[in-house]
Amino acid sequence: MTVTLAELGEAELLRRLTRFAPPGQLGDDTSTLDPDPRPLLVNTDVLVDELHFSDRTTSPRDVGWRAVATNLSDLAASGAIAVDGITVALVAPGDTHWSWVEDLYRGISEALSCYGGILLGGDCSAGRQRLISITALGRLGPLRLHRGDARPGDWLVTSGAHGLSRLGLALLQRDAALDANVALTESLQQQAISQHRRPIPRLDALNTLLKNKPEELPWRAAGTDSSDGLLAAVQAICHTSECGAELRREGLPRAANWPEGALWDHWCLNGGEDFELVLALPPSWAQTWLDHQPHSRHIGWITADSQQIIWNDTRHAVDSEGFDHFGSVP
Amino acid sequence: MTVTLAELGEAELLRRLTRFAPPGQLGDDTSTLDPDPRPLLVNTDVLVDELHFSDRTTSPRDVGWRAVATNLSDLAASGAIAVDGITVALVAPGDTHWSWVEDLYRGISEALSCYGGILLGGDCSAGRQRLISITALGRLGPLRLHRGDARPGDWLVTSGAHGLSRLGLALLQRDAALDANVALTESLQQQAISQHRRPIPRLDALNTLLKNKPEELPWRAAGTDSSDGLLAAVQAICHTSECGAELRREGLPRAANWPEGALWDHWCLNGGEDFELVLALPPSWAQTWLDHQPHSRHIGWITADSQQIIWNDTRHAVDSEGFDHFGSVP
Repeated sequence: MTVTLAELGEAELLRRLTRFAPPGQLGDDTSTLDPDPRPLLVNTDVLVDELHFSDRTTSPRDVGWRAVATNLSDLAASGAIAVDGITVALVAPGDTHWSWVEDLYRGISEALSCYGGILLGGDCSAGRQRLISITALGRLGPLRLHRGDARPGDWLVTSGAHGLSRLGLALLQRDAALDANVALTESLQQQAISQHRRPIPRLDALNTLLKNKPEELPWRAAGTDSSDGLLAAVQAICHTSECGAELRREGLPRAANWPEGALWDHWCLNGGEDFELVLALPPSWAQTWLDHQPHSRHIGWITADSQQIIWNDTRHAVDSEGFDHFGSVP
Repeated sequence: MTVTLAELGEAELLRRLTRFAPPGQLGDDTSTLDPDPRPLLVNTDVLVDELHFSDRTTSPRDVGWRAVATNLSDLAASGAIAVDGITVALVAPGDTHWSWVEDLYRGISEALSCYGGILLGGDCSAGRQRLISITALGRLGPLRLHRGDARPGDWLVTSGAHGLSRLGLALLQRDAALDANVALTESLQQQAISQHRRPIPRLDALNTLLKNKPEELPWRAAGTDSSDGLLAAVQAICHTSECGAELRREGLPRAANWPEGALWDHWCLNGGEDFELVLALPPSWAQTWLDHQPHSRHIGWITADSQQIIWNDTRHAVDSEGFDHFGSVP
């Protein structure tokens, strides 16, 4: 199990990867998908070592899972009701061990088994830094969620608690920001680490949304996922829809037993990588979704105040802190 | 024009890239393609700095062109008659200049303008090394070309001369292997450099193939492109089809005024990155294609001798020299 990719060679590497796809699937330059009457959704996301994952906090199996989950989360946030599959571009130094690659693809397979779709194809190359670029293909249901389709009066809702992934990272890194005086329940710690390592693309929450549209309403809703953080998701919806938002301070989607304090509110708003759905919906639709979707939250309202995002109590602007990948070059 | 990506920030970078796609195309997490009655073809290829391109030999504009061309070449070699578009994952260090990225996307746009398709979406991230991973989507015509569909008795044909891209690289690198005593015509040098910098995906040659099928024949042919070299393409067809091949020494697809000698034959067979179609066809179809496709060549025959590739005159095995990306880690 200690053979490196350089020792293995490209041909043998590709041969070994064929077992992660259906028989014959990887034998050609390209893959074919049968015609489908539903529109196709396409999404590409890249995960880079030391920036989006790290050996210190994430096993290769979890990297594989996360790479798939981040892509499928974008599909869910666009309205996908089925996943065709993914292509994977893997770049890794020649001294990378085959066992790392094997575990990566095991994690990829596990996620695909859970959420549908197959390994359609891909490419491998040597490179200085490990990274994985995934393109996911899925099929659109009756509702195309766009960031730009929010309307004043819509309720802002989300499919779950936020900040957990950031807390999970802090726990795994033994982050100094974690005050030893703040008690964290065992259950919260486990939930946070699991959310960081094995995020869940919320195809289920989309499904609940589609099933619970009040008949009299048209198929119009705005949505995105909270991969860049909850506040960034709200900002993206407001910016693209040319609207503002008012956030319910009491509606901040904290997990059970989430500590109080500025850091914890900050992680909830700006932690990132939670991969929940953030939606702007007509109130009656929002209510039926909240009634049927476990752990969903009503976080605020869309307003006509272009691009102003304020708290409902103080009427002050909600502080943001951008998450900029290029500002944190490894 | 000297601003770097770190100075620019991720949001501004993405904003600047929107002008390379149709209006609104990059505003969401995912892109949508309308339903199409034809099967979808999907291909992913990754190009890594210092391995697949280099500042010394290739401008960013040519890198963009080549990244698209390599992907569309795979689509052509699978039977694509239309290109929907591509997604682009760009990874680059924070000190990369915006002008480099801008020129890269200019080259991408130029290739898409020539061969069809749009920039559908993508992702950007910081990373230690520049690289570009492209996923191309296209539509299948009446013939699905597989590597594994060759039959003994088929003619082996190709859409053009081979070795030019390798010669182009040698000229650009002032390669010591270029013997000063071997005269190269100005026209050959220009052709070689152009083939290296701006390879052409042979969608045109596929089109000629589709138009010239003798009516009595079924839609059955084997094919791949010669991105890894002419001999590697023949080997891939033979290996997957469980056949052998006999190559015509006099049919070696040399360019006009191509010098004689072992190095030159070697580059013709193993140079790589020529992106021509290599096909195995029933003789009557091969003949009509050769008659109608300028610069096409009859290079040999498929035999029943499993995986033996020999010269027609000496009956000796054709020497191969693999091209292994992991063996040449930068």
